[in-house]
Amino acid sequence: MTLPNTRTGPCIREVRITPIAIVDPPLLNAAGLHAPYALRTIVELVTEDGISGISEIPGNVATNDALASATHLLTGRDVFQQNTIRQVLTEHFGTENAAQRGLTPWDQRKLVHIFSAVEVACLDIVGKVTNRPVVDLLGGKLRDQVPFSAYLFYKYEGAGGELGFGSDPAAQGWSAARQAAALDPAGIVAQAQAMCAEFGFQSIKLKGGVFDPSDEVAAMFALRDAFGPDRPGGALPLRIDPNALWTVETAIRYGRQLEPILEYLEDPVRGQANMATVRKALKTPLATNMCTTSFDDIPASIALGSEDIILSDHHFWGGLRASMTLAGICDTFGRGLSMHSNSHLGISLAAMVHLGAALPNLTYALDTHYPWQSDEVIKGGRFRFDDGAVAVPTEPGLGVELDHEALARLHQNYLTCGLTERNDEIEMQKVNPGWQFQATRW
Amino acid sequence: MTLPNTRTGPCIREVRITPIAIVDPPLLNAAGLHAPYALRTIVELVTEDGISGISEIPGNVATNDALASATHLLTGRDVFQQNTIRQVLTEHFGTENAAQRGLTPWDQRKLVHIFSAVEVACLDIVGKVTNRPVVDLLGGKLRDQVPFSAYLFYKYEGAGGELGFGSDPAAQGWSAARQAAALDPAGIVAQAQAMCAEFGFQSIKLKGGVFDPSDEVAAMFALRDAFGPDRPGGALPLRIDPNALWTVETAIRYGRQLEPILEYLEDPVRGQANMATVRKALKTPLATNMCTTSFDDIPASIALGSEDIILSDHHFWGGLRASMTLAGICDTFGRGLSMHSNSHLGISLAAMVHLGAALPNLTYALDTHYPWQSDEVIKGGRFRFDDGAVAVPTEPGLGVELDHEALARLHQNYLTCGLTERNDEIEMQKVNPGWQFQATRW
Ligand SMILES: [Mg+2]
Ligand SMILES: [Mg+2]
Repeated sequence: MTLPNTRTGPCIREVRITPIAIVDPPLLNAAGLHAPYALRTIVELVTEDGISGISEIPGNVATNDALASATHLLTGRDVFQQNTIRQVLTEHFGTENAAQRGLTPWDQRKLVHIFSAVEVACLDIVGKVTNRPVVDLLGGKLRDQVPFSAYLFYKYEGAGGELGFGSDPAAQGWSAARQAAALDPAGIVAQAQAMCAEFGFQSIKLKGGVFDPSDEVAAMFALRDAFGPDRPGGALPLRIDPNALWTVETAIRYGRQLEPILEYLEDPVRGQANMATVRKALKTPLATNMCTTSFDDIPASIALGSEDIILSDHHFWGGLRASMTLAGICDTFGRGLSMHSNSHLGISLAAMVHLGAALPNLTYALDTHYPWQSDEVIKGGRFRFDDGAVAVPTEPGLGVELDHEALARLHQNYLTCGLTERNDEIEMQKVNPGWQFQATRW
Repeated sequence: MTLPNTRTGPCIREVRITPIAIVDPPLLNAAGLHAPYALRTIVELVTEDGISGISEIPGNVATNDALASATHLLTGRDVFQQNTIRQVLTEHFGTENAAQRGLTPWDQRKLVHIFSAVEVACLDIVGKVTNRPVVDLLGGKLRDQVPFSAYLFYKYEGAGGELGFGSDPAAQGWSAARQAAALDPAGIVAQAQAMCAEFGFQSIKLKGGVFDPSDEVAAMFALRDAFGPDRPGGALPLRIDPNALWTVETAIRYGRQLEPILEYLEDPVRGQANMATVRKALKTPLATNMCTTSFDDIPASIALGSEDIILSDHHFWGGLRASMTLAGICDTFGRGLSMHSNSHLGISLAAMVHLGAALPNLTYALDTHYPWQSDEVIKGGRFRFDDGAVAVPTEPGLGVELDHEALARLHQNYLTCGLTERNDEIEMQKVNPGWQFQATRW
């Protein structure tokens, strides 16, 4: 196909790809244990006029190398021509399929990550040159604040970073309850209370798939006791995400127990067919960021009725415009929409907030790991949460600027930490030798 | 719902609604006969800074009155806040359903027309203030020219306007073959030859549902003889649109005859269930702008497999961004996409071309009645077709400016012609007393 190469607008002169490592606490999950550092990649597009646009994606050396291999396809291109850039990158990388996603809770496909990085940075530049926040490039904001959910984790003591387990200088501001281990219902409730007190969250999610489902269900009922209808303001909506590690039988058995207290049940089982079976057996809505994870997966999801809510992620669905399309699909087919997250900093958060503000059908508070991070790579420090929500930036573009000093420091962390991709299994084996990831565990 | 009322951008000061009547030839169709004038409504939004944005929608006094009743909801609003405007208008007008569409080939729902008018004019202003063509607000152009199909009609002699049948001063430039009646296969072939010679069309559509299907099928085979594989450049793709007037039996019988020569068969029958039955019986793809006409209709279309191609129309689907979402839905579910048209002028054509240039999955040439119009309401005269395609305007916004002198003259036509809405049945009765519209005729 011959694509027009429009050069009327700000054109990309340079693509800067900077891997960084950020302090991450010892959070337990289906795939193992978070390492002391989480990896992110910061992408800067610089135009011929010296305007820069930024984005942030999950860090993975293979993704970074792939993006580096494609920079010649980007230089010289008008940042408004995102449709063309998507087609050019698709031709370069080929289409991706479900297998390339991998079995982990996080997505491992290259093209969607790379296009997301490029598109968000392009929109940041478009916003700057048009003097509008990114949300206005998506049709304008429907809300001034975007609500997030408390994201609870079973965890070991500490806040990550070079000290590994135990206290970390970067986490000085953390309350004792967040520094503390949380390995049982009481620990989870204490963590929830700390998170809600500090950030004002109005809904709560527990990352499950870690312990025997009966223990995790007990934690959910403990949360219900602590945040139930007798609470001033009423019960907080509760969710649990076993990351597809439960069998169908387990999901139905514990799903039924949880029915009276759950807002939704997230990825209890692996695969759309299993989700559909569980869906039929339960009244509780099912949400997913593991079983329906791309546009290719949508037709079967609709045909099977496998999920009620898609947890979108602009890093995995190929950017903000694609996420708006996904929102339209969800609206058309009566599906709900919310957002998935991984450990991330303020650039990803800004993109999520701009998108969240433009979504017509935002009926659930979004996920974010952000409170678990201590580092930041943007100027002016970390985003604030009020009543669990983040105010939509009103400055042009994403409304956040890269702090190059912080970037250099976090890149140095990357170089010294020795990690090149996320592998929670290896990290878990350091604590629990012989531990192995299982696609279905409980 | 409380929506943010952002006032940072260019805000709407005034909404001007001008009904116009444009010369229209005596074209026959399922609903009867085109009147000597077709009605359009020109909408101008003027910002507090005096920047104006324009749009064009099908003319109907009820739509105009409804839009007039909503102008207080628009004034003071930032033109970037299209998501908010859509929600405000939806709350004002309520949601629409399939019944409100009506049985005619053209859509009669108010909200989608009104939101389309407002959104396109907002995007025109956004383009002007950001110095970018509208296509760049939709992610940028994937092609420099947008291809259209020849749109053949059975017709009486003449070119419409105040002289009614017979020649009209506005149509001086028309070839004898386009002025002539076309009531049989030979007339249709002559018309096709004239249209293709003048505009360079690379595909051909016949508006059917007018005569006995055997006659219309004969016309299609006559077109195949004239534009078949022996032609330099190869066979032109052919389509026929009986506007849902055939029975299932008729559609299957004649659909099978047409299979060897059709690119697609458009709305042979009424309703998705009938379309699905016909679809199963034929190899030819089915297209629709009558059976699946809104986002609400999509789930059943997908479940039934009732159509292969959606003929979108930004006037009926609620604007350009909604049409991009529809394109994403079609892509996701393996459906094709093209565009429907009504009698229209250059503002609608410009919007169609910007949209057409941004669509990733444009595999069929679009419909347009434009060659059947003689009037124009934009400065600089009528759009040119080269090889059947229209070049995407590169000026900011839609790239077309309202000619206020022409607007005044065409508005005067509206006041004097006495029409307030389209009614092809009444027009047909003037020629053929007692003729009545039938939802299923053949
Ligand atoms: Mg999840
Ligand atoms: Mg049609």
